[in-house]
Amino acid sequence: MTGSKSAMGEAARLRKDAAEANGEAAALQLGELSDLLGYLLKRAQLKVFEDFLRCVETLQLTPAQFSVLVLLEKNPGRNQTEIANTLGILRPNFVAMVDGLESRDLCARMRSTNDRRSHILVLTDKGRAVLSRAKKLVANKHEARLNELLGPANRAALIGMLSKIAREF
Amino acid sequence: MTGSKSAMGEAARLRKDAAEANGEAAALQLGELSDLLGYLLKRAQLKVFEDFLRCVETLQLTPAQFSVLVLLEKNPGRNQTEIANTLGILRPNFVAMVDGLESRDLCARMRSTNDRRSHILVLTDKGRAVLSRAKKLVANKHEARLNELLGPANRAALIGMLSKIAREF
Repeated sequence: MTGSKSAMGEAARLRKDAAEANGEAAALQLGELSDLLGYLLKRAQLKVFEDFLRCVETLQLTPAQFSVLVLLEKNPGRNQTEIANTLGILRPNFVAMVDGLESRDLCARMRSTNDRRSHILVLTDKGRAVLSRAKKLVANKHEARLNELLGPANRAALIGMLSKIAREF
Repeated sequence: MTGSKSAMGEAARLRKDAAEANGEAAALQLGELSDLLGYLLKRAQLKVFEDFLRCVETLQLTPAQFSVLVLLEKNPGRNQTEIANTLGILRPNFVAMVDGLESRDLCARMRSTNDRRSHILVLTDKGRAVLSRAKKLVANKHEARLNELLGPANRAALIGMLSKIAREF
């Protein structure tokens, strides 16, 4: 009996070791985090951004770069500060991002004719073409998968609540 | 007439300048972003994190630091890798964060008795006290305000959808 018990103990230990090696160790208790909106927003956002990156991998665009290109297309002639403020991106981060987009010939900085101290941002022809392809990938792969997971009604409700938080909280 | 027209033009220009100085310039068109789940998740998450920081300002805790302390309380004896993986925090960032918490005597690293190469993380008495105060501020100020904005039923629906995305997407 003792031998049998310790053999079972050994088997259980090996199973546990294997499970841990596979990342299947007993899940940790999340406690208050499982009901904390900020925590869940962050976890969901990370998952959605990972999928976005996979879906537009061929174009090498981050979600933030995509959002800049969308704004440039919809709002020609606006300056860097307006674009950065609208997206809530801090100035140094935004300047670095625009440097990257400009070096790939996706957008260009031009001196404003109204205020020579400020730069307006314009989409190049290449930027317009890349954005057009990115929009199709985002709609057909990324958003389509999210729609499948949530269903259209829930997706719309989620969009509504997130917009409300972003606008009013 | 010409004088009157140009005076009106001047007034409109001054009004526009003042509006821009007040950050009330014509809002930019968001285009596809206003219906893009990833974009709205990020904007909502930033708003919620800002409010979290304000609510626990007296304790100087970030959302990520708070989540580490919650996990340490609920899961004593777990090692750094398990905590970091559960929270989806990259190793170098996690090590720097634990350094910060340890320097404030909120948690401590101890050598694991099972595996001397790994460190387990423990909450100190001070860490337990700070966490207890933080939980009250988060519940009574931060989460209470979110509850007020969304209503309890919508808040629960939102939690459910975010958990589903974090788990299944």
